[in-house]
Amino acid sequence: MADTQTAAIYRGNKTFEVTQVPAARPGPGEVGVRVAYCGICGTDMHVFHGNMDARVGFERIIGHEMSGTVDAVGEGVSGFAPGEKVVVRPLDPDLTCPASKAGYPHISHNLKFLGLDTNGAMQEVWVVPAHTLHKLPDDIRMDHAALIEPVAVACHDVRLAELQAGEDVVVIGGGPIGVLVAMVARDAGGKVVLSEVNPHRLAIAQKLGFETVNPAEVDLKAEIDTRTGGKGADVVFEVSGTQPGVDAMTAVAATRARIVMVAIHAQKPLIDLFQFFWRELKLIGARVYEPEDYEKAIGIIVSGGVDAETVITDIAPLEDIQKAFEELDRSPTALKSLIKVGG
Amino acid sequence: MADTQTAAIYRGNKTFEVTQVPAARPGPGEVGVRVAYCGICGTDMHVFHGNMDARVGFERIIGHEMSGTVDAVGEGVSGFAPGEKVVVRPLDPDLTCPASKAGYPHISHNLKFLGLDTNGAMQEVWVVPAHTLHKLPDDIRMDHAALIEPVAVACHDVRLAELQAGEDVVVIGGGPIGVLVAMVARDAGGKVVLSEVNPHRLAIAQKLGFETVNPAEVDLKAEIDTRTGGKGADVVFEVSGTQPGVDAMTAVAATRARIVMVAIHAQKPLIDLFQFFWRELKLIGARVYEPEDYEKAIGIIVSGGVDAETVITDIAPLEDIQKAFEELDRSPTALKSLIKVGG
Repeated sequence: MADTQTAAIYRGNKTFEVTQVPAARPGPGEVGVRVAYCGICGTDMHVFHGNMDARVGFERIIGHEMSGTVDAVGEGVSGFAPGEKVVVRPLDPDLTCPASKAGYPHISHNLKFLGLDTNGAMQEVWVVPAHTLHKLPDDIRMDHAALIEPVAVACHDVRLAELQAGEDVVVIGGGPIGVLVAMVARDAGGKVVLSEVNPHRLAIAQKLGFETVNPAEVDLKAEIDTRTGGKGADVVFEVSGTQPGVDAMTAVAATRARIVMVAIHAQKPLIDLFQFFWRELKLIGARVYEPEDYEKAIGIIVSGGVDAETVITDIAPLEDIQKAFEELDRSPTALKSLIKVGG
Repeated sequence: MADTQTAAIYRGNKTFEVTQVPAARPGPGEVGVRVAYCGICGTDMHVFHGNMDARVGFERIIGHEMSGTVDAVGEGVSGFAPGEKVVVRPLDPDLTCPASKAGYPHISHNLKFLGLDTNGAMQEVWVVPAHTLHKLPDDIRMDHAALIEPVAVACHDVRLAELQAGEDVVVIGGGPIGVLVAMVARDAGGKVVLSEVNPHRLAIAQKLGFETVNPAEVDLKAEIDTRTGGKGADVVFEVSGTQPGVDAMTAVAATRARIVMVAIHAQKPLIDLFQFFWRELKLIGARVYEPEDYEKAIGIIVSGGVDAETVITDIAPLEDIQKAFEELDRSPTALKSLIKVGG
């Protein structure tokens, strides 16, 4: 067994150092996972931009949207054998907090997010708590499997929306998560319209077969009213994180619509609360995922419910991680860039 | 049968005229109800202040929080006999609209609210569609029964919250509706804290046996955290209609809390959407009531789950309606004023 392994360390100032680190060995309750692919998340891009330096520091190996195989199993871990294909659900909750006790460990008060609060998957072998693993079918493509984490986010959003087949859906925002939400909503039988102002993203959404509206050019509410016979959208996903998106979410909503808050709004927007009262709208906050969302996401990747070939726009080897982040940062058309970590 | 009956007509400019109008006779599908008592709603006070002149005009008999007995039954109406005690659920929906077709006629797009969009209960006999009636038990007190309509609002709010016995509840705003929501939530087994800044209203809430917090004097979030072991409130009712109330609703909410929007926010407030995402909060708009809320409210009035004696602070005869509105308008301590319309 090698004493060292290759890893990419975030050093601050938009810089990764690809270097050798001591080989990772699983302790009790842990599993070492040989990483195949690791996607670059929007959060990873926030790290790259220096917005999370206080949280991650300058010794951190980031990355959490991964696929891999079991490398070694720590003491007391059963049910996993070397070579098995797995993905990591990168949440390590504080099980003593009130939220965990109430049944919501995935949003526990002192949740550790693996790959941000701990080292992550941009290294050859990633050691994680065994409880974070989900097994994959043998014949899954490992590049596609690196989409399971973001697809699980979308599955969580769609599940909390209680979306029923045949319902009218508007997805506000056509970035990587918006597109995945749209695909999962379509897979669930939703009639999806995607609202986006960026022409590159509109083109991708159209390539993925979605009806699209550019609200900078067309009155979105009037368009949705026309398409739904004056009813409005039964389910709305706000993925834009913008004030116009928040304005649109109430404008397009049908009576008793469910509006899922997927976006992270760092600023407090103005919200048309009167419409919540008047039409008995429901706003549902949704964050990360629960185990069943991972199982659903695995099934969707296997079934082709998400067009992984279109979503994955770049794959680069780990030694080119610096260039991959830089290119993703300036690309108007990229959706998901993967880093190929292992063999 | 008399050819005329006494009615109070809103003439604009904070003025009611008590006069004789032609006696009301039920047409096909209608029932004439001899009104016993009619409460003064916050909406009626808006009419009094001239804020709804465009909607109600200057020939309108208002009033909808009533109790009464069947006076006469129109053609084609079965199941009601003269003398039976009834209340009116004052909603006449447009059954052809998408909201009604989806199962929500109570918030139908072109809903007529009886007593605002049509003449109301501040008259001896009120003619209403038969489908709006709920029967009352023979031994109910008719003054107490005039509270059924506002109690049904509270029952709707509590039902949409899916409140479970033992859950921690914060009611933000201790006016008439806030107090009724608090009582219905307590009746459902909720552990209720009422937040209110007005000392008169705080005193009434305390008299009704509620734990209270004055957020102008005490840090409400810290207080709720202390009382709930750091968990926060499982259910929050925003009844204040203010920006500080909206700030408080997210601050006091537990992970996955349900926040019910009872208040009418004419202005768009700033909302901490990040907290909706971070703690997966749910915001639930709630307006008026459905038939089951009326049945629940009748049961609560009968069982004494609402302290009707404390809630009803004044009763005046119909001929004194002008004075009753004027006194309610300037009283800091009044909760519910009733007009005694009939015998």
